[in-house]
Amino acid sequence: MATGHADPRRRERILAATLDHIADEGVAGVSHRKIAARAAVPLGSMTYHFTGIDDLLREAFTLFADHIATVFERHLDHADTPAQAREAVTDLIHALSAGTRRDLILTQELYTLAARRPEYRELTRSWMRRSRHLLERHFDPDTARQLDALIEGLTLHRALDDTGTSHGRELTRQAVGRITATA
Amino acid sequence: MATGHADPRRRERILAATLDHIADEGVAGVSHRKIAARAAVPLGSMTYHFTGIDDLLREAFTLFADHIATVFERHLDHADTPAQAREAVTDLIHALSAGTRRDLILTQELYTLAARRPEYRELTRSWMRRSRHLLERHFDPDTARQLDALIEGLTLHRALDDTGTSHGRELTRQAVGRITATA
Repeated sequence: MATGHADPRRRERILAATLDHIADEGVAGVSHRKIAARAAVPLGSMTYHFTGIDDLLREAFTLFADHIATVFERHLDHADTPAQAREAVTDLIHALSAGTRRDLILTQELYTLAARRPEYRELTRSWMRRSRHLLERHFDPDTARQLDALIEGLTLHRALDDTGTSHGRELTRQAVGRITATA
Repeated sequence: MATGHADPRRRERILAATLDHIADEGVAGVSHRKIAARAAVPLGSMTYHFTGIDDLLREAFTLFADHIATVFERHLDHADTPAQAREAVTDLIHALSAGTRRDLILTQELYTLAARRPEYRELTRSWMRRSRHLLERHFDPDTARQLDALIEGLTLHRALDDTGTSHGRELTRQAVGRITATA
C-alpha cells in the first residue's frame, strides 16, 4: 500500500471513519464517498490509500482486531500462573461484555461479513489464532482453543442478555475453571 | 396481526422471502417493495400482514429462531442420561457449525441487529432462554447457561475456521465434558 508523500494521518482518519460508519450503519452502506466525507478527506485519498472497498474493509477490521487483541493482552500480560490466568480471563470476559456497544457491533459485523464471504475468513482466523496463542502461554493448545470459544460465547451471551444479574462473575469464574480443568 | 380472508400462505411467503433477502444482502436492504417482489405478493400484502419493517424483521427472525430451536430439540429429545445429553450436544455443535451458510449468516445478522438496537434483544434473550430450558432437562441451571455459551462459541469458531481439521469431534466432546463436569 502506497504511503509516499501523503499525510499518513489521513489513512488513519479514513480507517477510523470507516469503523465509525460500520458501527452506526453497518458494512452494507460503506462507500468511498461516504467515508471520505466522514473522515473529511478528499475523495482522491480513498483510492490513493486503498485499492477498493474490500481493501478498506479489510484494513479497518484488521485495526479493530488489533484493538481487541490489545484488550486481550492487557488482561493476560500480568498473569504468571494458570490460576492468575483464569482470573484474568474472567476479568476479560466481563470487560468485553460490559464494554462499549461499538465493540460488540463491530465484532458482529465482522463475523457477519466472514459468514457471508469466505475471503474475509482469513481475518477472523488470524484473529482467533492470535487469541489462542496468548492463551497458550498458560494452557495447552486444545484447552486454549476450548477456552477461546468459551470466552466468545460467554461474552456474547452476557452482552446480549443485559437485563438480569443471573450471569454474574461467579458463573464466569466457574465456567473458566471447568474448561481449563485437566483432571 | 390480522389474517382475515387473506391467503395465510402469503404471510409465510413474505417471511421466507425476508429471511432469503437478509441471508443474501443483509438486514440493511430490507424494504416492503423488495420483499413483496421477492415473495411475489402485491405490495399491499406487506402492510396488511405487518405493521412495518420492525414487525416484519421481528416475525422473520422469530421464525428463524424457531427453526434453530427445532434443531436443538431434535438433537436433545432422545437423550435420557447426562452422558447421552453430552453426546447429543457434541452432535449438535457439529451439525450447527457444518450446517448451511444461510443459518450462520442469519444468526450473525440477528446478533448484529440486537447489538445495535436494544429492542431486538428480547428476541435473542427468549431464544437463549429456550435453549437453556432444553439443556436444563439434563443439567442444573448454571451448567446449562455455561454450556449454552460454549455451544455458541464452539459453533461460531468451527464455522468460521473451516480450513483445518484441528477442531475435531474429540475436542468438542472434551469441551462439553469439562463444562458439564460437576466434581
